[in-house]
This record gives sequence, structure tokens and C-alpha cells, in this order.
Amino acid sequence: MIYQSFEDIISKNMPKNPVRMYLVAAEEEGVLRAAAKAEQEGYIEPVLVGKKDKILNLLVKNNIFFKNLFIINAEENKDKCDTACQNIAREEHSFLMKGMVETSDLIRSILREKKSLLCTDLISHVSLLELPYYSKILGLSDTSVNIKPSLIDKENILKNTVAFFHQLGYKNPKAAILSSIEKVNPKMQETIDAAMLKEKNLKGEISGCIVEGPISLDISISPKAAIVKDYKGHIQGDADILIAPDMVSGNLLGKCFNFTPCSRFAGFLLGTKCPVGLTSRASDYENKYSSMVLGAILTGGIA
Amino acid sequence: MIYQSFEDIISKNMPKNPVRMYLVAAEEEGVLRAAAKAEQEGYIEPVLVGKKDKILNLLVKNNIFFKNLFIINAEENKDKCDTACQNIAREEHSFLMKGMVETSDLIRSILREKKSLLCTDLISHVSLLELPYYSKILGLSDTSVNIKPSLIDKENILKNTVAFFHQLGYKNPKAAILSSIEKVNPKMQETIDAAMLKEKNLKGEISGCIVEGPISLDISISPKAAIVKDYKGHIQGDADILIAPDMVSGNLLGKCFNFTPCSRFAGFLLGTKCPVGLTSRASDYENKYSSMVLGAILTGGIA
Repeated sequence: MIYQSFEDIISKNMPKNPVRMYLVAAEEEGVLRAAAKAEQEGYIEPVLVGKKDKILNLLVKNNIFFKNLFIINAEENKDKCDTACQNIAREEHSFLMKGMVETSDLIRSILREKKSLLCTDLISHVSLLELPYYSKILGLSDTSVNIKPSLIDKENILKNTVAFFHQLGYKNPKAAILSSIEKVNPKMQETIDAAMLKEKNLKGEISGCIVEGPISLDISISPKAAIVKDYKGHIQGDADILIAPDMVSGNLLGKCFNFTPCSRFAGFLLGTKCPVGLTSRASDYENKYSSMVLGAILTGGIA
Repeated sequence: MIYQSFEDIISKNMPKNPVRMYLVAAEEEGVLRAAAKAEQEGYIEPVLVGKKDKILNLLVKNNIFFKNLFIINAEENKDKCDTACQNIAREEHSFLMKGMVETSDLIRSILREKKSLLCTDLISHVSLLELPYYSKILGLSDTSVNIKPSLIDKENILKNTVAFFHQLGYKNPKAAILSSIEKVNPKMQETIDAAMLKEKNLKGEISGCIVEGPISLDISISPKAAIVKDYKGHIQGDADILIAPDMVSGNLLGKCFNFTPCSRFAGFLLGTKCPVGLTSRASDYENKYSSMVLGAILTGGIA
């Protein structure tokens, strides 16, 4: 299974029934509009968590209409996150979507319910990207959670992302461990880590994927660059997954991809039992909508 | 002075006479084709440095035509770099363009001629970008030379880039010191360094520019993101210069910008007395051409 676009994922996996989505800190026009559209199209049953009066005001002011209106009133950000996580922990087929709270607040609440909500050793983030110049869906980790991942952290980030791609239906996704060059340079820790991850993959300690690295962005996603640079590795401009050296480089790269005209983006926390949609607060309405629809599909199960 | 595009720079600064350009390791079709076009259009007088027979074969095989053909024969990469640098060191109005050699080889040769060729404490790199979604030219440093710049290195990288923009005619360019967030976080060295550079700018220790940081990519180049995130800094999605936290993040970001359809790119080493055009070996013909034309303009002087 390889998906060419978000539409491709959605059309092949339309959920039979709407999936309940807790929208944490719903007090923002774009995220409310995205939720209303996803409800209207039958993907989700949204539960809005936040300041009830502010949410109602935003709905009226911006002419946003929900068929059913579920609002859980919560004043403080901690309460909004805790309430949503406690509800999610008790339910089987619901998912979370981040609104106007800090990622760190949401993660703290998830960790307070870790017995019910966590399923791996590390929480990480994946950006799922649809790019006009790339022939298939691309995953990028980790742009938002782990600041300076150690080698073990990177292994867990990689495993989380591979598991996410398996959930989407991929058998053996190609993962590029990013660097600026293709050779190990002792002055560049990211090249050493990349070579170690590749070795673990060759030994079978990391399985269900093909790992290549250190490798530059152009060889990872441009077949032409692989030819010009006469590159002989397992990835020839056809990566499914990009693993960034650290958070700041992943964050800059992810935001740069997002600026690409005609690109689409969805973001999720990984390592949790249910999907947690997570986009930047300044992210487009479209990207928030995509995250909600894909979150519903992932919760409802993939074909 | 603010330039909206490469065409804008070129049309306002067309050199009166062709400028001599040493093309170091010219044995590649794209770079030869770019040089032939830049010669034909009157920007440069190219001197091709490399294996003479291989260059001649490439010209014949690919139907590439030079009006005047100057080839300096050199077999080894070190010789190609040294020869070009020795020539440049003796001349007043010539510049260098990197062909199929490693950047480190070229820098080593520049350093061997440092008395004649260097003008600042640090060699760095700037990528000059024209992006379809951005209203003006954008500079990005340092994607290619300084692996893990210290605070002092970053100050030098910033000063080199600001000097380059002054040379282009800018009075007070806006420089964003990139991070993933807008607050200082002691766990993120890049946020501390960014705050220090901003402070040095406020104190007048770094002048001729407006420095803002730590700041994320979206607030740096998207006015809309600055509004949504209610950001109050000196940059409101209108940066002229982006300073990357380190080489790998700059490299990934630069390559990502390059993938943007309808973008243009030119690359230069900074800290040298003459322009040194420097693009990736896998870079497009168009980007190599842009670097040559802008290199000629910078050498010939800006209006």
C-alpha cells in the first residue's frame, strides 16, 4: 500500500460512522470551522472543550454551525487538557485534537493518564505531508516534541513513525535519517546516529522498514538528485519517512514544507493509544481539517 | 532598497562589461551550460578550470558553445582549486564559481591565499532565495560551511550576511535568528544564542540591521502567522535574512526552499574579497546560472 495523496487515503478508508473527537481548547475560529466541516461531512462527532461562552460567541460571530453541539466547559488550559484526556481514557473509539493550548500542556495531561493512553516508551510527533512535487505521502518526525533526541530517542521516534505507517497500511516504508551529507563525519553527531540506525535495521533490531542514512534531503526525495550525485543507497529520492536530526531542524523543515503552495499537512502525536491531532496554532484551517479527517479514519480503522 | 526578485536585481544592475569568472572543476554539463548562457548574455567571461579533455568532450557531446574558450588544465581537485584561487588573488575584478568539487576543498585553497582573499574572521555561506509566496528576496545563512557555530560564529555569520545585503544596496535588513519558538528555553541553545544576538543589536554591538529572535520560520516570513500568534516583535513575517541554528538545519531548510516550484536560488561564500558562487552539485542549471549572473553583478558593483 502506498498512498499518493490525502484524498487517496480518505477515499479508500471512509469511516462508516462519525468518530468522536475531543477538541481541546476550542476557542479559535479556524479550528471550529474545520470541526464543523468535518462533522457536516460525517467524519466526526465533535466535543468542544473550553470556555463555553467564548466558544458560543465565536460560533455566532463567524456563522459556524454544528448539527449537534457538545461543549464541556473548562476555564483553565490544564483543566481543558485533563478533562479531554480523562474522557478519552475511558472510551474505546474516540480521538483528541489540539486547539489553542501549548503542546507541552497537552502532553502533561496525557502523561497523567499514561496507563490508559500511552503505548510506547516515547511520545513523538509526525507531520504527514502532501507535496505538489512529490508522488506520494511523506511523513516527517519529529518537529514538535523531542528537543535533542539521543540515539535511543531517535530509535523510538523512528519506531513510532514506522508503526504509524503500518497502521496506514504500509508494509515496509522507506525511512531516511536526515543529515546534510551522505558520509559519516565525527563532528556531526547526526551522521553517526544515522549510520547506527541503519546498522540496527540491517541487523534486524529495527524491522518493518528500510532505513537509510546519513542522507541529505535532496537525495531522500528527488530521484534526479540521487542520479546527479551518483548515490548508491536504498533510497533513491523515494523516501516515505524523513527523520530529522533534532526538533529545531524538523520544525524549520516542516514549516518550510507547509509554505509550499498546494501542499497539505496533517499532524499527530505518536506513542499514544488513540490518535492525537496536533497542528501549529498558526496552521491553516485546511491543515486542521485534514488532521481531523485523518484522525477519524485512523481511529475508525484502516481498510 | 528592497529587491522583489532576481530579475529586479539584474535589471537594475546590469554590468557594463563581462566579468571574468573562474569555474572550478568545470566537468559537468549543467554548470557548463549555465556558464555558456551567462557568457552569451554578456555577464561573464568564463575561465574553465579542470580536465581539459573531459571538458572538451562534454562541450561537444552536449552541443555547448562558448564564444571564447579559456581552459586551464588541472587534473586533481586540489590543483583546480589552488590554481583558480591563485589567479583570483592576483586580479581585481574576477570571481569564483564552484563546479564539481567539495566545498571543503575550495575553502582550503581560499585559506591558503587568505591574505589576498579573506576580508572577515569567518567564511560562511548565504543562499539567496526567490520564493513564489514571498514578496521579496530572502537570504539564508549558513547552510554549507559552519557545522555547529558558537555564539561568536553566529555573530560573524550574521555580520557577513548583513554586509552582503549592504553590498546589494540594503540599508537596514531585518534578520531573523531562527528557532522553533519565540521564547528562550534553557534546553534549547539556539533560543539563548538568538536572544543574545538580539541584545547585541539593541546595544549597537551589531549594527546596520534589525535583529529579531528567537523566532520561528512562520512568523519570520508569514505576516498572517505573526497576526494569528499575536506576535509583537520587530519582524512581522517580513524578514530579509534568516540565520539558521546550525548547518544541518540550515541545509535542510535551504534544500526544502529549493524544492518549491517556481523558486530560484543563488549561493555564495561570504567573508571573501571576491564573490564565490557556490551551489550544491545536484543543484539545477537555473540556480547555477543565477549564481553566476549575480556573482558578476556583485563583482562589477551594484548601482
